[in-house]
Amino acid sequence: MKTESVATSQALFISTEAMLAHWQGHRNLTRRTIELFPEDKLFDYSVGGMRPFAHLAMEMIDIAVPGVKGLASGEWEKVEEFDHTKSMPTTKEGLLELWDKATQVIDETWPSITSERFQKVEVAFGQYENSNYATLLYFVDNEIHHRGQGYVYLRSLGIEPPFFWER
Amino acid sequence: MKTESVATSQALFISTEAMLAHWQGHRNLTRRTIELFPEDKLFDYSVGGMRPFAHLAMEMIDIAVPGVKGLASGEWEKVEEFDHTKSMPTTKEGLLELWDKATQVIDETWPSITSERFQKVEVAFGQYENSNYATLLYFVDNEIHHRGQGYVYLRSLGIEPPFFWER
Repeated sequence: MKTESVATSQALFISTEAMLAHWQGHRNLTRRTIELFPEDKLFDYSVGGMRPFAHLAMEMIDIAVPGVKGLASGEWEKVEEFDHTKSMPTTKEGLLELWDKATQVIDETWPSITSERFQKVEVAFGQYENSNYATLLYFVDNEIHHRGQGYVYLRSLGIEPPFFWER
Repeated sequence: MKTESVATSQALFISTEAMLAHWQGHRNLTRRTIELFPEDKLFDYSVGGMRPFAHLAMEMIDIAVPGVKGLASGEWEKVEEFDHTKSMPTTKEGLLELWDKATQVIDETWPSITSERFQKVEVAFGQYENSNYATLLYFVDNEIHHRGQGYVYLRSLGIEPPFFWER
C-alpha cells in the first residue's frame, strides 16, 4: 500500500529506470572524455591550480560504487573509509578498467533500488543528509561539473572535447 | 485514467515538484557564480578560446525561458527564432535582472506541466527529439556543464568559486 501512495500522491518527473539510463549516458560521455586526454596530461595537467582530470574521474568512481550500494542497502560507508589516492591507477588503461567495473556494479545494483528508497531521507556516507534521489542527483551533477572542467583542460590543450549531447 | 497508469506503471525517481526545486537550486548557484565575476571579466575573459561566462549565462536564460514554456504548452519556438547575442545585456546588473525574470517565469509556468507532459516525446525547439523529461534534464545538465567551465575561469583569475553543494 505504501508503494501506491507514493506513486499516486507525487507526480512523476522521471522513473528510476530512465534515471539509470540518464546516468549511464553521462558516464559514457565522461569515459570518452578520459579517453581523449593524452596519457601524461590525464595525470598531471590542470588549469587554475585545480586537480588533474584523472583525480576528478577517480573521485567519480569512488562516489559511484559505494554510493549505489548505499542507495540500495541503506548502509553507507563513512567518508573517511575511502581515500581517492590510495587506489589511484597510474595509467589511462587502468583508470578505464576501474571505470568499466563501476559501470557494471551500477547496472547490477540499480534494479534493486525501489522508488521508496529514493524518497527516503538518509545520511549519505555518514555525513550528507538528504533525500536519496537528491544524493544520486548530486553524484551525477558532480560528474557533469567536473567533466565541464575537463572540457576546459582539453580545449586549453588544443583538443576538441566530445559533443556534450552525445551520450 | 491515463494519469493513473503512468503513475503506477513506472517507479518514481523524483517528482515534478522536487525537480523544480532541484533546478532552481542549481540556478541559484549559477546566479552566485555570475555575481563573483569582476564586471569586465564576465564579458571578456575565457580560457582555451571558449566563450566568456556572460555568454554562457545568456545561453542558459535563452534556453530556460522558451524551454519551460515549450514544456508546458507543447509549442516550441524554432532554434533560429532566438539569437543569444541580440538581447545580450552589457552589464552584470542587466544580466542578473534577466536571470531573475527567468526564475520567475519558471516558477510561474512549472506547476502547469503535468507528469504526462514530461513523459511525452516531442521535438524541442523544432530540432531535438526526446522525452520532455530528458529535454529538461538537458537544460539543467547544460547549465552545470557551463558553470563548471566558469569555475575554471574564476580559479584561473584567482577567485574562489561558490561551494558546489550550496544551492
